[in-house]
Amino acid sequence: MSSTLRLGIAGLGTVGSGVIKIVQQNAALLTARSGCSIEITAVSARSRSKDRGVDLSGYAWEDDPTVLAQRDDVDVYVELMGGEDGPAKASVEAALAAGKHVVTANKALLAHHGQALAVAAETKGVNLRFEAAVAGGIPVIKTLTEGLAANKITRIMGVMNGTCNYILTRMENAGLPYDVVFEEANQLGYLESDPNLDVGGIDAAHKLVLLSSIAYGTQVDFPSAQLQGIGEISIDDIHAASDMGYRIKLLGLSQMTGNGLEQTMQPCLVPYNSPLGQLEGGTNMVVIEGDSVGQIVLRGAGAGEGPTASAVMGDVMDIARGFTLPVFGIPATQLVNTPSAQSKAPFAYYIRTSLRDAPGVLANIARALGDAGISIDRLRQQNHDGDSAPILIVTHPCTPAEVEKAIKAIKATGDATSDPIALKIVEV
Amino acid sequence: MSSTLRLGIAGLGTVGSGVIKIVQQNAALLTARSGCSIEITAVSARSRSKDRGVDLSGYAWEDDPTVLAQRDDVDVYVELMGGEDGPAKASVEAALAAGKHVVTANKALLAHHGQALAVAAETKGVNLRFEAAVAGGIPVIKTLTEGLAANKITRIMGVMNGTCNYILTRMENAGLPYDVVFEEANQLGYLESDPNLDVGGIDAAHKLVLLSSIAYGTQVDFPSAQLQGIGEISIDDIHAASDMGYRIKLLGLSQMTGNGLEQTMQPCLVPYNSPLGQLEGGTNMVVIEGDSVGQIVLRGAGAGEGPTASAVMGDVMDIARGFTLPVFGIPATQLVNTPSAQSKAPFAYYIRTSLRDAPGVLANIARALGDAGISIDRLRQQNHDGDSAPILIVTHPCTPAEVEKAIKAIKATGDATSDPIALKIVEV
Repeated sequence: MSSTLRLGIAGLGTVGSGVIKIVQQNAALLTARSGCSIEITAVSARSRSKDRGVDLSGYAWEDDPTVLAQRDDVDVYVELMGGEDGPAKASVEAALAAGKHVVTANKALLAHHGQALAVAAETKGVNLRFEAAVAGGIPVIKTLTEGLAANKITRIMGVMNGTCNYILTRMENAGLPYDVVFEEANQLGYLESDPNLDVGGIDAAHKLVLLSSIAYGTQVDFPSAQLQGIGEISIDDIHAASDMGYRIKLLGLSQMTGNGLEQTMQPCLVPYNSPLGQLEGGTNMVVIEGDSVGQIVLRGAGAGEGPTASAVMGDVMDIARGFTLPVFGIPATQLVNTPSAQSKAPFAYYIRTSLRDAPGVLANIARALGDAGISIDRLRQQNHDGDSAPILIVTHPCTPAEVEKAIKAIKATGDATSDPIALKIVEV
Repeated sequence: MSSTLRLGIAGLGTVGSGVIKIVQQNAALLTARSGCSIEITAVSARSRSKDRGVDLSGYAWEDDPTVLAQRDDVDVYVELMGGEDGPAKASVEAALAAGKHVVTANKALLAHHGQALAVAAETKGVNLRFEAAVAGGIPVIKTLTEGLAANKITRIMGVMNGTCNYILTRMENAGLPYDVVFEEANQLGYLESDPNLDVGGIDAAHKLVLLSSIAYGTQVDFPSAQLQGIGEISIDDIHAASDMGYRIKLLGLSQMTGNGLEQTMQPCLVPYNSPLGQLEGGTNMVVIEGDSVGQIVLRGAGAGEGPTASAVMGDVMDIARGFTLPVFGIPATQLVNTPSAQSKAPFAYYIRTSLRDAPGVLANIARALGDAGISIDRLRQQNHDGDSAPILIVTHPCTPAEVEKAIKAIKATGDATSDPIALKIVEV
């Protein structure tokens, strides 16, 4: 390694500008800590003329990121454009083929093509690093891959989409319905251009499947992650959860079971006073459980210029220090293609629906639950809302299959005036 | 690096046994993740015959850890005996001189001799790593040195002594006085043989000064850390703090100011609902603030067999993966010998004392505060306790010097029937 490490950066949005600021402002610190002079040689973005608040005059400009990625004067290709295919994928592949290290914040790219890219990187003996792709500034990839490397990882949980957490906490704190807060978040620019990436849980699930791969030595498997977005969560659910000492969070859960890998991303109730329950606004949290270490909780900003750029530059610093590591912690050729498992672990569930106001209706619902093997811990029928009555049920622990059966049976009674929703209660 | 990494372990207490269990039980995992077979070749401890619940029959025995440290068949010397001098220091020095990597959990050794040991390690081009020395299983050294390497660190805070946190939370939850809970902790084996290491804040300060060194690129400076133990905290303080929405924690605080490095370890009031305030029992928490990343919070078990062994083995895994890093993140010869600074940052303070039951007494105290430049935010005189009345004061933000002046003046009135205590209120 020369005593200079040269970066080529593609994508000059928020994160790209943040990376340039760190390189310019903390140059002496970066050199002291890495033993390398870290320099930017070339950049690329859609618009050359846009003012980004950083001085680009010292850097070569490339219109085509794939050309940038292969430049002779680039040692590390920093991909910050995003997108699971298109220029991001093409340029990262080109960089790896040219023997360049790659640092990226692109969770979609890795969730869909991580295995092939890891093989490509390791074949060439270069690093492909993605700390910034998961939970913004929190060094969770490093913690899992390195700090906890001696642990058999038993479970990972995480709140990893700041926008969803903003929406849910804002609904609770302001007492506003989902649609209103969704629109607020949109106005504030918090939502992806396809909002379903956020509120549908897709973005957060991209992150979860990357963590799973490292934790269990398995090939990244996004398609079989079970997703449920936050769009069905009503302000009534949030109030009801709060009354019972819980808060609703879009929670990722990943564990290896005897049947295979379980990966779920869904709104869950968590205890109000738990670390996860205390999480406000855009903050992210990841909980990692290992056989020796017990439970480790990491918390920090999940997005934003500074935090995400900090993570990108953490990866760059590792490369400058000469660290080399397989992309997912063990060589990609050894990653196992594990079957995915439908979650079978029993949890207590929160079930909400509305019922016709008629004799015998409650009995029908109770029977639907009983027939599915579910026993009721708590039940509350609320004030009538016109000619239907909202009903909240907390079950004793039961399996997702039992809940699914019960939901079908409740619908079949014809007594439910709204589609029942069921949320796991996760005691952490 | 050969494809086998051979460990010599000195000290077979809780942590040493934990390390052996990981090496024996997770052997395949360690090899998959590091590309190395990790083996133990030799061990040393005070008593050879003691049953430690692990099979030592495959390992050579050395009575003298310094001999162990220099064995030809040892690549990494794992020092788990503890103690700032004596065999720990001698054997670590011998290992480094012999060109062995060293992994240790010994905070006292590094807090007192870190600079010389770092120079010795770096002269020989070997690693001296100490993740397990700070906050047990939490990978805080790695996070600070590597994950946040691109950040100018602005502040570090931490609850890093599980025993103190156990005592304080137990006092609150059971409503018991300090002496009773101290004795309980003693019976449970939670206290060091010199309890002042725990309750005097020394152990926690050892950890804090190691973090400071990495954060600010300064030579480890334990002697100038300002320490205040938890022995003066009464159950009344805990109740009063709770009434005002705070909890008392033994909190370490480290920041670089224009005047030099401030390092304090003292009981402080923190908001009940903050991450630090929510910390129960033996759990540790470290808060790191950086110019780009903002605030990162790390939480986990601060002690115990599994968590501490996890941290030791994380260091071993890094060595097995061929990572090399200066001991404190930048070369020891570049670490600055920064002047220490008395803390000047203004905080609100909680002040408790008791006053003689006589006319004019309260006025005297109020004047003492006013003369010191301190204005009162809240004041509460409690029920009389015999012929003296406990009094609680919360100040507006003021400097430690002003508080010290006020405390002296309060004592000088002759009206205080108990020594006033003053605790910072840290809003985090």
